[in-house]
Amino acid sequence: MTIAPQADIALATRLFAALEAMNETGPGMTRDAYGEGEERAHRLVRAEAEALGLSCATDAAGNLYMTLAGSDAALHPWIVGSHLDTVPHGGNFDGAAGVLAGLAAIAGLKRAGLAPRRTITVMAIRAEESTWFPVSYIGSRAAFGRLDAATLDLPRVDTGRSLAAHMAALGFDPEAVRAGQAHLRPGAIHGFIELHIEQGPRLEGEGVPVGLVTGITGSFRYRRGVCFGNYGHSGAVPRGHRQDAVMAFADLAMELDRRWAAMDAAGDQLTITFGEVATDPSMHAFSKVPGEVRFCLDVRSDRQDLLDRLHAILMETAGEIERRRGVRFAFGDRTGSTPALMDRRLRAAIEAAAQASGIPTLTMPSGAGHDAATFAHAGVPAAMIFIRNQNGSHNPDEAMRMEDFAAAATLLARVLGGEP
Amino acid sequence: MTIAPQADIALATRLFAALEAMNETGPGMTRDAYGEGEERAHRLVRAEAEALGLSCATDAAGNLYMTLAGSDAALHPWIVGSHLDTVPHGGNFDGAAGVLAGLAAIAGLKRAGLAPRRTITVMAIRAEESTWFPVSYIGSRAAFGRLDAATLDLPRVDTGRSLAAHMAALGFDPEAVRAGQAHLRPGAIHGFIELHIEQGPRLEGEGVPVGLVTGITGSFRYRRGVCFGNYGHSGAVPRGHRQDAVMAFADLAMELDRRWAAMDAAGDQLTITFGEVATDPSMHAFSKVPGEVRFCLDVRSDRQDLLDRLHAILMETAGEIERRRGVRFAFGDRTGSTPALMDRRLRAAIEAAAQASGIPTLTMPSGAGHDAATFAHAGVPAAMIFIRNQNGSHNPDEAMRMEDFAAAATLLARVLGGEP
Repeated sequence: MTIAPQADIALATRLFAALEAMNETGPGMTRDAYGEGEERAHRLVRAEAEALGLSCATDAAGNLYMTLAGSDAALHPWIVGSHLDTVPHGGNFDGAAGVLAGLAAIAGLKRAGLAPRRTITVMAIRAEESTWFPVSYIGSRAAFGRLDAATLDLPRVDTGRSLAAHMAALGFDPEAVRAGQAHLRPGAIHGFIELHIEQGPRLEGEGVPVGLVTGITGSFRYRRGVCFGNYGHSGAVPRGHRQDAVMAFADLAMELDRRWAAMDAAGDQLTITFGEVATDPSMHAFSKVPGEVRFCLDVRSDRQDLLDRLHAILMETAGEIERRRGVRFAFGDRTGSTPALMDRRLRAAIEAAAQASGIPTLTMPSGAGHDAATFAHAGVPAAMIFIRNQNGSHNPDEAMRMEDFAAAATLLARVLGGEP
Repeated sequence: MTIAPQADIALATRLFAALEAMNETGPGMTRDAYGEGEERAHRLVRAEAEALGLSCATDAAGNLYMTLAGSDAALHPWIVGSHLDTVPHGGNFDGAAGVLAGLAAIAGLKRAGLAPRRTITVMAIRAEESTWFPVSYIGSRAAFGRLDAATLDLPRVDTGRSLAAHMAALGFDPEAVRAGQAHLRPGAIHGFIELHIEQGPRLEGEGVPVGLVTGITGSFRYRRGVCFGNYGHSGAVPRGHRQDAVMAFADLAMELDRRWAAMDAAGDQLTITFGEVATDPSMHAFSKVPGEVRFCLDVRSDRQDLLDRLHAILMETAGEIERRRGVRFAFGDRTGSTPALMDRRLRAAIEAAAQASGIPTLTMPSGAGHDAATFAHAGVPAAMIFIRNQNGSHNPDEAMRMEDFAAAATLLARVLGGEP
């Protein structure tokens, strides 16, 4: 390339500030999927895209496509982007950074006077987080006509209204989604690039601003686990007669933790999280042996064999604790995803652009799930660029330095602008 | 004694049924302390006592005294009784059995034509359970003018209104309670006998209808324990960087459980219960490493040295987990009670009456706390008679056979009627 474009960081800075200012319930950002929080963010980026002269469209599921037409209509387009929803009380950068980077990259290309031959679409994806509806990647799956029809009938955890009702309320077309109508055709996409904050501590710990992702972890999840014991008087039931659900849950958690420590020490990487735990407020009491505890379990790894191994350990351990403590575990429906590999050629192209630009990078797996997995599973060459960030994500303290965002967004602009 | 009285079981059966029928919110019985549930029960037993010709009075805290005057006013009176409140969704017999046994015993004495020389007062005690206000034995402590004044300002956990406000709303005199006005004088009471369901499985397991209690366990309690960790993305934070509050809590619970198992095997009896556990619903998520978990801890033993030893283990273990897992435990205020010994002479008198009546008994400690502890701590000779029961207590499945109640209430009638 003869001219090296810079992403338009002033534009991105302004949009991040606007996203933060429009948030209504603290602490942190709450951009609820198919709710007012996500909707406000979509309106903001669409207005900005229109000001940049991009053509805007939505699909049946409400994903937003903001397109700079290339000079050669015969070339398949790039899609770049990420999601705009957040978990409740999450941060400002998880998701939004990838959408704003796409707009900042296009603005940078324009400012540099570059008119790419290949069309570039910035995609603002709906409902990536699985905290609102108990399914990940709703928007990106729907874009490919690959959203399981039953998902449309799932209630949002806070409103109790179905996904279909939420889509319809915003003017979208849930029945087209249910029928599997696809807006995107895998074979007609040149590649998908998702820029995203790391959400973990590795880049910060190693002092590197940008990560190049090898693959995205898969998972297995039990969102409605229950341990049933037997309520009893906290003083009058001797140790040998107890069926204590909390002690049994703690036993399960500690045994998984012990096995995890051993796998981790052997270099077999996964994560195990019991994110929500609660005894039953309508039945528990300070002076009762707890007879029931509910919990969520999320296990992730970029290796399917490790997921399988840990799942076997979970079932075996639960059975052993049931026999030993007189309790019963009910795990409910298993959900999850399979690990997704990023495209080797696309990764190499991004790495070459980073080297040419003098941007230090770290090659790493993604412990978190991302829409890029949907593209990869659909057969689209997909890649992810991680931005170093502080304090993780999915929490109000999530942070990111704008110079690191600038490095990653400029890298994106150069990959897009470097097209023949 | 020349005539061996029988307790009036028809009367008790009728009152148990009436108590059950007047309960409004299932499952189980909810007789809320200083609320409508407890109040209805007081009205019921008072009406029955008046029908029996007993003179009725209440004290400043609303404890109800139903008195059969003895023929010799120079003799100090018996007090027999228990409490009428229940935990939320508890059983029908915990507490109420002791009050109804007193009325059934008096009715039995009358029916047998016995006119005791010693006055007998059946006491229906307020607010024994510590689930409504976070303090045990409120009614019995207040009767001796020994309720800590600050207790009156504690809010009821469900209504948020103070104990003083609840007392005043029922027409009682919280300011007299606050001033330490005593209705009972320890030196002017011959003895206190509390009949109560066992709440544990020992009598049922050993096939014995009645227990004679050696002492009542003391306790230490932390009702507002919290473990603070750090929220993070469930997939993106590797094992070594986690500050997982749920894993840290489980670690604490399992270490205490391990130490408890060792003490139990050595014959050192105590109980350890985490009755309520919850992550923060406004902050937790399925896909977040949990940054906070709240819990209650209740540790009971009839030996103060075991309570002290377990408390030292708790503090040491928490500190060790804090260092190892990067979390912080905050236990909040410590409450509890000291173990209370039952009166040796009174126990012997009851045991002799049981032998004379052919009622099999088992001598045992009480793992649960009871108002009898307040009487013992005040210096009143106190004793407890346990009734075999099924399915523990503090739960809707609590059960008791009327023939076992009859054995215990008749034993009570014979002790009271056997007075010189």
